[in-house]
Amino acid sequence: MMLGTYRALWLNDEGDLEVIDQRYLPFEKRIRVLKSANDACEAIKDMSVRGAGVIGNVAAFGVYLAAREFADDKQKIEQAALDIRSARPTAVNLMWAVDNMLEVIQRSDDVVSDCKAEAIRQTDEDVRRTQAIGNIGADIIEDIMTVKKLNQFHILTHCNAGWLAIVDSGSALAPIYEAQKRGIDVHVWVDETRPRNQGARLTAWELQDAGIQHTIIPDNTGGLLMQQGKVDMVITGADRVALNGDAANKIGTYLKALAAKDNGVPFYIALPINTFDFECANGVSDIEIEQRSQDEVHDMQGLNATGVVEQVRITPLGSQAANYGFDVTPARLIAGLITEKGVIQPNKDAIGQLQW
Amino acid sequence: MMLGTYRALWLNDEGDLEVIDQRYLPFEKRIRVLKSANDACEAIKDMSVRGAGVIGNVAAFGVYLAAREFADDKQKIEQAALDIRSARPTAVNLMWAVDNMLEVIQRSDDVVSDCKAEAIRQTDEDVRRTQAIGNIGADIIEDIMTVKKLNQFHILTHCNAGWLAIVDSGSALAPIYEAQKRGIDVHVWVDETRPRNQGARLTAWELQDAGIQHTIIPDNTGGLLMQQGKVDMVITGADRVALNGDAANKIGTYLKALAAKDNGVPFYIALPINTFDFECANGVSDIEIEQRSQDEVHDMQGLNATGVVEQVRITPLGSQAANYGFDVTPARLIAGLITEKGVIQPNKDAIGQLQW
Repeated sequence: MMLGTYRALWLNDEGDLEVIDQRYLPFEKRIRVLKSANDACEAIKDMSVRGAGVIGNVAAFGVYLAAREFADDKQKIEQAALDIRSARPTAVNLMWAVDNMLEVIQRSDDVVSDCKAEAIRQTDEDVRRTQAIGNIGADIIEDIMTVKKLNQFHILTHCNAGWLAIVDSGSALAPIYEAQKRGIDVHVWVDETRPRNQGARLTAWELQDAGIQHTIIPDNTGGLLMQQGKVDMVITGADRVALNGDAANKIGTYLKALAAKDNGVPFYIALPINTFDFECANGVSDIEIEQRSQDEVHDMQGLNATGVVEQVRITPLGSQAANYGFDVTPARLIAGLITEKGVIQPNKDAIGQLQW
Repeated sequence: MMLGTYRALWLNDEGDLEVIDQRYLPFEKRIRVLKSANDACEAIKDMSVRGAGVIGNVAAFGVYLAAREFADDKQKIEQAALDIRSARPTAVNLMWAVDNMLEVIQRSDDVVSDCKAEAIRQTDEDVRRTQAIGNIGADIIEDIMTVKKLNQFHILTHCNAGWLAIVDSGSALAPIYEAQKRGIDVHVWVDETRPRNQGARLTAWELQDAGIQHTIIPDNTGGLLMQQGKVDMVITGADRVALNGDAANKIGTYLKALAAKDNGVPFYIALPINTFDFECANGVSDIEIEQRSQDEVHDMQGLNATGVVEQVRITPLGSQAANYGFDVTPARLIAGLITEKGVIQPNKDAIGQLQW
C-alpha cells in the first residue's frame, strides 16, 4: 500500500479522503476533504473529481466512508453505495468499483476495515494497469517512429486521461509519460475540450508539470493538422467501451476519429480492462449519453487582469445551449484498444475473451 | 443605392464608413468609424469586421477612402489598395473586391466619385446575391422536409455566415431567414466556433434578434447530434472555394462535413459566386491557411458578475497554443454549393462554367 504516492486522491491522517479539486486547476491547486459517502457523491457529481479511474477510486473510498459512518448497518452502507453508483451515468468504472465494494460488504465481518482494504487494493491495481498501458503504448509509438523514420513524434489527445483521471499515470497519457522516460522526442497537440476545457486546463497542466512539449488547440483544429500530416497518432481514454468495441468518451472524440480515418492516422483508445462494459452489446445504440447543465457552455472561468479567478458569461443572454457529455466512436474507426493486457482489437470476439 | 438598410456597414453623412465593431458583440453594439484606407485595413486585420462578403465591402469602401485621401495620386491609391488586399490571406472576396476597384481606378477620370459608386455597386450586388441564395436554399429545405415528412427542420451551422458576414442576409443563414419568412418551423444548432466564438457570439445574436429558435453547442457536439438523427442538414459559408470544389471555411468545418458524410446528413456550402477562386485548382493542397495570434486561444471575453465585459485567461500560464483560422473541406464531402445562380456541384466542370 503506497497511498502517499497517489497524486489525485489519498487518505489523510484522520482517515478521510482528500482529493485535488480539479475544478480549480490550473489556476489553483485546491484540496477537498471528503468525510462521508455523501461528500464523495457530491464530488463526483460536481466534477471536483473526474476521469474514469479516479471516479471509480473515489466511489470505492466513498463506500468505505459510508462503512465508517454506518458501521453496524449494512443496509445503510449499501444504500449509500447505490447512491454513489448512480452519481454519473456513463462511467462504467464507477459501477464496477461500487459493485466490487458491495460484494466485499456482503461477505465481511469487519466492514470498515475490509472496505478500506478493498478501496486501497482497487486503487493500487489501477497504478499497475496504467504502468502496463504506458509500456504497451510506448512500444507502439516506437514502432510507428521506426516505420515512418521519425525523429519527433506528434500525438493528438482529447480531454484529460492523465494521472488526474487514472492514478498513477493515466490511460491516454501513460504512453506519453513512458515515451518521455525512454528519451523519445514527443510533442502533444492538446484539444481544449469544450465545454469544460479538461484538455486546456488539466492535460496542459499535467504536461507542463512533467516538462513535456505540448500545444493547446481549439477542438476544431485536429482535422486540419491531420490533413497537413502534423499528427502521427491520436490517443484518447474512454469512459465505457462496449462488447462490440464502440467507445464512449468525452464529446468530440468521434469527430477526431473520423478525421484520423480520413487521413490514415492511427486512432487508439487506451483503457484499463475495467472500462469495458461486457453487458453492453452495441455502444452506438445502447450507451446512455449524459446531459449536463447548459451553464457549462454559457460560463467560462479564468484569471482576470488582477490574477483573480473569475467567471464570465460568453454567450448572449437569453440564448439556449445544450451540453452533451459524451459521444460514441464506432469500432470501425479505432485502430486498437491499448489495455494492460496488450492491444485488443475492437470487436466482440477479442473483447469477449477478456471477460473474467 | 440604399446604404441606409445595410446593417453591417454604411456611409455616414460625412462620407466616412461606419461598421458594427463585431469584436464587442453580443455584449455591446459598438460602431467604429473608418476614415481612411489605413482604418479599413486595421478593421479587417483586427477582425472588427469579418465574414467573406463584409470584408470585401469594407475593402472596396477602403479603396474609396484612399481615393478621397489621395485624390490626385493614383499610385498612392493603388498602394493603399494593395495593402488592404493583403490584410488577410484566405478571403478571396477581399482580393476580388480590391481588384475590381483597381480596374475602376485605372480607367477613371474622377476616382473619388467612381470608387464610391463601385463600392456601393458591389455591396448592392451582394444584397441581391444573398436574396437569391436564401430562396434557393429554402427550396432545398422544403424538398428535404417533404421527402422526410418533417414538421420541424433542424439545421447545424458553423461560425457566422449571416448578415454580419454578407449584407443583407448572409450566405448560410440566408436560407434560414427565408425559411422563417415562409413559415417553416426551423431550429438551428449553433456551433460555438472556437477560438473566436463567432457562432456563440454572432450567429446566436442574429438568430435571437430575428426570433429564430436556436441552441448553442460546443463544436464537439455535432457528431453526436448527427448520430442521433437530430440534424437534417448542415450548412456553412465559405471563405474561398477552389475550382475542384474544395471549400476553405472556418476551422472545424471539415470535421462537421466528415460527420455529415458518416451519417448521411446533406452538407451544403452557401456562397456568392465571387467566393470562388477560379485560379486555385486544388483547395486542399493549394489554399494558404492563416495562422493568428495564440492569444485568441488563451483569452476569453465575457460579461462578469457586475455586467462589465472582461477578459480572462483560460489556459495555464506558460503553455503554448496554436490558432489556425481555416480548414479545407474536400469536395467529396459536399452535397452542393448553393449560389445565386443555383446549386452547383462541387467539381471542376460545373464550377468552371461559372467563370465570367
